[in-house]
Amino acid sequence: MLIVFHGANAETFSIGIEDRLGAGHEVVRVSDALDGDGEREAFEKAEIIVGIALKEHHPTPRALKLYQSPAAGVDQIDVGCLPEGSTLCNAFGHETAIAEYVMAALLARHVPLVRVDAQLRQGNWEHWAGRPTGLRSELRSQTLGIVGFGHIGKAIAKAAKAFGMRVLVANRSVVEPTDVVDESFGLERLGEMAPMVDVLLATLPLTEETRGLIGADVLSALPNGAVIMNVGRGAVIEEHALYDAFASGRISGIIDTWYRYPSVENPEPHPSELPFHELPNLLMTPHMSAWTTGTIARRQEVIVDNVRRISRGELPVNRVYPHG
Amino acid sequence: MLIVFHGANAETFSIGIEDRLGAGHEVVRVSDALDGDGEREAFEKAEIIVGIALKEHHPTPRALKLYQSPAAGVDQIDVGCLPEGSTLCNAFGHETAIAEYVMAALLARHVPLVRVDAQLRQGNWEHWAGRPTGLRSELRSQTLGIVGFGHIGKAIAKAAKAFGMRVLVANRSVVEPTDVVDESFGLERLGEMAPMVDVLLATLPLTEETRGLIGADVLSALPNGAVIMNVGRGAVIEEHALYDAFASGRISGIIDTWYRYPSVENPEPHPSELPFHELPNLLMTPHMSAWTTGTIARRQEVIVDNVRRISRGELPVNRVYPHG
Repeated sequence: MLIVFHGANAETFSIGIEDRLGAGHEVVRVSDALDGDGEREAFEKAEIIVGIALKEHHPTPRALKLYQSPAAGVDQIDVGCLPEGSTLCNAFGHETAIAEYVMAALLARHVPLVRVDAQLRQGNWEHWAGRPTGLRSELRSQTLGIVGFGHIGKAIAKAAKAFGMRVLVANRSVVEPTDVVDESFGLERLGEMAPMVDVLLATLPLTEETRGLIGADVLSALPNGAVIMNVGRGAVIEEHALYDAFASGRISGIIDTWYRYPSVENPEPHPSELPFHELPNLLMTPHMSAWTTGTIARRQEVIVDNVRRISRGELPVNRVYPHG
Repeated sequence: MLIVFHGANAETFSIGIEDRLGAGHEVVRVSDALDGDGEREAFEKAEIIVGIALKEHHPTPRALKLYQSPAAGVDQIDVGCLPEGSTLCNAFGHETAIAEYVMAALLARHVPLVRVDAQLRQGNWEHWAGRPTGLRSELRSQTLGIVGFGHIGKAIAKAAKAFGMRVLVANRSVVEPTDVVDESFGLERLGEMAPMVDVLLATLPLTEETRGLIGADVLSALPNGAVIMNVGRGAVIEEHALYDAFASGRISGIIDTWYRYPSVENPEPHPSELPFHELPNLLMTPHMSAWTTGTIARRQEVIVDNVRRISRGELPVNRVYPHG
């Protein structure tokens, strides 16, 4: 098989891949812009492409059997550009990494480690057990509302339950209450769930259905002091409504997924045209929640598995298109 | 019943206690030094004392039925000073608070939220998914060794397992492997467990058996780069051996319980005679892990329950002395 890793993101998943694949495959790494020697030709002849973006302006990979995204999101892959008979697959393995990010960020709101360490080094014992001024709050007493209950939502529900949080879920398809879900709602009842939560966490992919799903109406239904988190896709939360909600000081947030990303033209942008970066009441991170050595290793397993399946003429796993 | 809350620590647990107890009880708050008007007399007449220290120099509470510690540790309560027929009880309800502290501190080692937030506000996307330089490690791949498997150890094992950590336990009595314990050891086999862990967490109370249990031999058996944590009692880890291990740079740590605490003579001490506070490779906190509003509320429930039991002539719960 000729396997082409397209772009800088995919290249990360190619490290050591030859050893994992074994003999019988040719692995080629090409740049995002496909402007290196022979890169367009390799792309056109590829039987398998690993990449995160396929658009009209890319050459057509006529021999393609599998377009493998090394990530869950496939919103930058135009299925109209896939040649007939090819399959689009994605990869997960990031849900435990995202759960670590989410719980780290939530726990950090209750356990003020950095400040307290600096205090104690100066002989300040404000938070010593027994001192009423040093009492902290607990995550345990809080209610988490998870929007979208796929791989990510499920991993987070499990982690949140280990700390005794109350877990509500809003999801397109019906979610039955389990030992990690106390109550669930349809997505159309999001405004009904919002007043019940301390933390509203968006985990949704970006689709025409989810774009702007969380707008001013949902944000204004959150209780005072609530926390809004996004580890799905930025545009699921309406940009101006989110900025206004933070700017009012009524809610705070932990935002990992954004409205603007680095590009060749603008390699160090602020993550929105609005000055989120000037507000104190949110934690801003650069779409990092899934990005761990463990995620890479788990996704490489999926890539290797699917290469072998295609080689043997079997159906690959994690098929996104054609559906089913 | 005459219920005396002795000292500043106990006073925290008396807030709102009259409402919880209902009619038929007299609640008196006295200072640690018992030097206020009528404080010694109240102490001597108390039927129930809530406090954390009872020593030779204190008056004898001749009518005492129950000495109730509002905490788990009773190492400052000299049972020889309890009048005959009285019972010593302790209180828990802190284990979930400590589990939040432990997981917050462990997760913070893997998810660099504060630094990354500051970077992104400057347009720096180093940790953006896809950039090999920004990859982080996961807690999931790590092995946690818990020393002491009481209320605290069990709560932490459950939380650690929710993140997929491997959990080993060293305990005086035999612990059977369960869904949250992968392997267990007797305390005498601590040196055998130490090389297997990424994190060694002490949760033990201070007794003659546990004092200095973790010494230079155990610390030197830890792998390079291991993390040592203490949320039990400081002196369970030998002070000079711990300092030397940190100073060598071979291991790092998260230390909440210490060798020196504030006193009337020295209200803002460094927490050891050794300069731990000059070392960069540990997180230092002032014995705060249990200190949450939730812990207070859960312990007040125990105090109220035991007052009612004593009033009705029933045995109180959480008896420490007499044993059984």
